[in-house]
Order: sequence, then C-alpha cells, then structure tokens
Amino acid sequence: MNEIIYKPIGIIYSPFKEPFGVPPQPKFGKGIKGKVEIFSEYCLGLKDIEGFSHIILIYHFHLSRGYNLLTKPHWDDKKHGLFTTRSPRRPNPIGISVVRLLGVKDCILDIEDVDIVNKTPLLDIKPYVPEFNKEEVIKLGWLEGKIKS
Amino acid sequence: MNEIIYKPIGIIYSPFKEPFGVPPQPKFGKGIKGKVEIFSEYCLGLKDIEGFSHIILIYHFHLSRGYNLLTKPHWDDKKHGLFTTRSPRRPNPIGISVVRLLGVKDCILDIEDVDIVNKTPLLDIKPYVPEFNKEEVIKLGWLEGKIKS
Repeated sequence: MNEIIYKPIGIIYSPFKEPFGVPPQPKFGKGIKGKVEIFSEYCLGLKDIEGFSHIILIYHFHLSRGYNLLTKPHWDDKKHGLFTTRSPRRPNPIGISVVRLLGVKDCILDIEDVDIVNKTPLLDIKPYVPEFNKEEVIKLGWLEGKIKS
Repeated sequence: MNEIIYKPIGIIYSPFKEPFGVPPQPKFGKGIKGKVEIFSEYCLGLKDIEGFSHIILIYHFHLSRGYNLLTKPHWDDKKHGLFTTRSPRRPNPIGISVVRLLGVKDCILDIEDVDIVNKTPLLDIKPYVPEFNKEEVIKLGWLEGKIKS
C-alpha cells in the first residue's frame, strides 16, 4: 500500500488564525472555545454524542510543511526523535486532541480546551474513554519533569 | 481541501491474522505482543523513544470497507452514531491505540497490549503523555457502565 487517501468530514474553527500562539496541548488551551462543523453527509454519525463530556478529534495539520526527523520540541532545548514529540511537522501531519464537548446543534459541535488552528480539516471523531487509555506504570523519557502548567 | 494523501511510515505486526478476534481496545489485549517495523527512511525519528513506557500508534484500518453512520457497537445492542463508537468502519478509517513499548532495536519496536490486526499500515507514532489526556469530569454517554474487563 503506497498512498492512503482521506477526505475531511468537517472543519474545526478556533480563535487561532495561525500556528504561532496555539497552545501545545489542550491542557494549556483550557477555556478556549471553538466549533466543529460536520459536513451534512456525515451528520447522522453524531447521534448520541451529546452524552459525552469529552471527544477525540483527529485532524490534518493543514499548515504543516516538511519535517525533520530530529527536532527540538516545545519542552526541551535538546533535539529528540520526531516520534517522541508532538510537533505538527511530521511525515503524515496528523493531529489528535481531547477536547471538552459543550453542546451539539444540528451539525455543529461547541467545544472547549482547543489547541487547534482555525479552519483545520477534521478527519475523524472518536469518543474519549479514559478507561481505554489509563495506564499504570509510565516512563516519559526526555519529557519527564519537563511539563509545567 | 478535498483529498489528503498519506503514506505508511511502517507496518504493525501482531498475532491477529484477521479482524475477527482482535480485542476491541488495548486494555483487552493485555500481554499480547507485536512488533512495529519503521521504514528505514524514518528510523532516525525514533531517537530517545526507548525512554517511554507507552506510545500512541496511529494507523490505517486497511481491511475496513465502507461504513454506516449508525452502528451497533461492541458494547451495546442499540445503534449509536458512528462517531460515538470505535468501529473500524469509518469515512476515514484511522485507528489509534496506546500500547506498551517493551524495547527498540534498530528500526523495530517490540510492543505489548496489542489490539491491531497483522500487517496494519502505520501512519504516525506519538509519545503517550497521560498528563495531556487526563480529564477530571467525564460523561460517557451510552457507554456509561457498559465496559467490563
């Protein structure tokens, strides 16, 4: 398999007009509101989503160009392997964010804790289920102790 | 933007030759081992990854064909909106799993807690940082109380 072709299912709107100033993770975008417009042909797939307080957005970093396999991340002044960072500049520039779901009306989701640039193409939404992600023993490599609120 | 084109950066190997029998989440694939082969041109991007106990794999559900916007998920006998489920049959069939990283040798990662079918094309790896995903107040919609180990 050489090429994998996806099509946006919607658009994410946020106050961030450009990548500069976008919080590096939703944790640091607390209280920042945005909207997700789901294209009408996919809207039925939102049924029952209002019962979830958090959702996972999977999206395309549409402003990302090129990448370096060694990169100096937000949290450190040393270079590390790209796949140990959340840099948007990646071979396949896919982003994932857990955001708070405030409400749903027709094909529009109101969201909070947004760390995503305006007009980002949305690829998928999945329910956020902490049960699935909870891990007991964690080593954080070079990130250990570097994350400060 | 109409089409988004990605290319696999590697392949995920597991004991699951077909989707039937694959655990619905890594939590239920505890102890099941697999390997990830990163193609040599991306291998440098793994630098320092051995310090992380868990990583996020983002991959293409290559055996998935078509989708229904209302679907009966693994955990319930009622239909729900596709985007409130983890069904592999989605408009853009992207999967994400948090797996345990056991070791790294050259371009091969040894992983555990695998819920992925054999020979799945890998799109991206991100570090798993629970700090980024931890959310305090959670409503789980139709999934509430349905997940049993």
